[in-house]
Amino acid sequence: MDTSLLGPDTVTRLTDIEDVVRTVESAFAAHARGRSIMPAKSYVELPAYSGDVRSMPVYLDIHPEDGPAEDAWDAAAVKWVNVHPDNPADHDLPTVMGTIIYTDPETGFPLSVMDGTTITRLRTGAAAAVATKYLASEDATSLGLVGAGRQAYTQLEAIATVREIDRVVVSDRRSVAAQALVDHFADRFDVREGTIEEAATCDILSTTTPVEEPIVHAVGDRTHLNAIGADATGKHEISDEVLTDARIVIDDYAQCTHSGEINVPYSDGTLTDADIDAELGDVVAGNVAGRTDGDGVTLFDSTGLAIQDVAAAHVVYERAREVTAGDSYELIDTDPGR
Amino acid sequence: MDTSLLGPDTVTRLTDIEDVVRTVESAFAAHARGRSIMPAKSYVELPAYSGDVRSMPVYLDIHPEDGPAEDAWDAAAVKWVNVHPDNPADHDLPTVMGTIIYTDPETGFPLSVMDGTTITRLRTGAAAAVATKYLASEDATSLGLVGAGRQAYTQLEAIATVREIDRVVVSDRRSVAAQALVDHFADRFDVREGTIEEAATCDILSTTTPVEEPIVHAVGDRTHLNAIGADATGKHEISDEVLTDARIVIDDYAQCTHSGEINVPYSDGTLTDADIDAELGDVVAGNVAGRTDGDGVTLFDSTGLAIQDVAAAHVVYERAREVTAGDSYELIDTDPGR
Repeated sequence: MDTSLLGPDTVTRLTDIEDVVRTVESAFAAHARGRSIMPAKSYVELPAYSGDVRSMPVYLDIHPEDGPAEDAWDAAAVKWVNVHPDNPADHDLPTVMGTIIYTDPETGFPLSVMDGTTITRLRTGAAAAVATKYLASEDATSLGLVGAGRQAYTQLEAIATVREIDRVVVSDRRSVAAQALVDHFADRFDVREGTIEEAATCDILSTTTPVEEPIVHAVGDRTHLNAIGADATGKHEISDEVLTDARIVIDDYAQCTHSGEINVPYSDGTLTDADIDAELGDVVAGNVAGRTDGDGVTLFDSTGLAIQDVAAAHVVYERAREVTAGDSYELIDTDPGR
Repeated sequence: MDTSLLGPDTVTRLTDIEDVVRTVESAFAAHARGRSIMPAKSYVELPAYSGDVRSMPVYLDIHPEDGPAEDAWDAAAVKWVNVHPDNPADHDLPTVMGTIIYTDPETGFPLSVMDGTTITRLRTGAAAAVATKYLASEDATSLGLVGAGRQAYTQLEAIATVREIDRVVVSDRRSVAAQALVDHFADRFDVREGTIEEAATCDILSTTTPVEEPIVHAVGDRTHLNAIGADATGKHEISDEVLTDARIVIDDYAQCTHSGEINVPYSDGTLTDADIDAELGDVVAGNVAGRTDGDGVTLFDSTGLAIQDVAAAHVVYERAREVTAGDSYELIDTDPGR
């Protein structure tokens, strides 16, 4: 019995970002309805290499009520993913690399091993799009991007599936990176380089930088923010003034208070539990209202959940089956024994 | 950058069981010396399918002092492994299947994805051999096997690397299984089918059955037992009378008291912490004596540790590199980004 190998080119080529956004939306709903099993990430800290590797196991059971696609499926998966900040300089490798084993929950058989680096990028963009769908103004048309790294591209691609984006302003301290993004999207959007302040007055703002001192100090009156960059204790992109004024929706309480955008003001008491409005799953599931007329600034604090990974992996795996993409490999001994 | 794929045929063909035993021995020593990181297994329970999947992340740092091979290496890995007891009957698949991602700790790059089913079998046999090396009589020459499934084969192969085994007695309630083992090894050992009582009076006894009511009620005066079968709460192969008389060495305190051979008598108070002599790592590291002249019956309670998996994976991965075996595959996006 063969396992399907799906490398980066295959994952990228097969993926319809709109499908990933829809499936990640279903995943948040199923999670809020108690149909996920998501143990805490297990960390293997590697101080000798200034890095770590983490395992993220998960099971997700989607029912038709959970999402726009109205289908039913379940799957188990694990993502094994590292964070080694010295990789680009020392090894010409990405800081973060991931491998996903996508598993049939009925038998435990590993249906697919796939590029978790690309999946991580897709599912992070998809979560921001889901948050934007529920929390941004219906008539939002402009998107600010602070940070022009790879995730900025995915933010734009994903968010453009839930709002009619026409104008994009991108800001990066490396102008060459901002210009590369402008060039990449010039034929699809009215996209230009600008200051952080200009990006931050757009209807929607996605921040994707690793800073530890806030760089966004003011936003538009009704801007929806996707705070993506903070993924470790001490990281912090958005000023406390903006945060305390915003309606805050998080992806996961334990992760966000520990390592998300809110972790610094939460740890010093500037923000408390009373300032956290809801988890995104509860908004998607309808337990908490999405944007209301009374809402001004809204903020989604994204740290990244294993339910997003298995949802994105499901989209890629099923698409690969449909079009017979990827490579079949006899990876596992499936002889039931003597 | 490519990842090395090592499927079951490659793993089986490349593996020298003696190398695995030596490397697992080093792993136990390094573990006892504090040079391992081994978070608790994370369980994803799947009651709808009467099964579960678990992730077992690990880092191991071997120094020359740790083992017979006197080499130095380190590695991280995760094993993603299921237990679905209905698989053989319902799906013609094994109860347990595993996939291992073997990782460079310096960068987090997945060097290899390999068949964890075969690795699990090898490392379990290797742990019993290490225990036998330190706890059985030096002049032990006979091995009893209770249970004639796949693990019985690996027990014999592995234990024969640490003692001069000539006589083997195998007992299984399915005589056809016992006879198959006899036929398989007939040209290498004086091997015959026998009763449990006959197997249990050998110098060494390995039990590999899934029973929940003890089936071994008496052993030889100086028999060393490897109790392999119990891997879940309620499983129990060896009678309390034998256990209370034995010097008990375990692989891991938390796992053995919860789901190893001693779990049932430990939970009802028949055995207490005072009856547990040591963890195997402390014996291998020299913190606790191996077999002494005063020892009668000794017992090793094996539940299986992630350090064993990464040690066995290391042997297979390095051997595959030496002989250029396995298949190179571009599994992960390693572009450090824009």
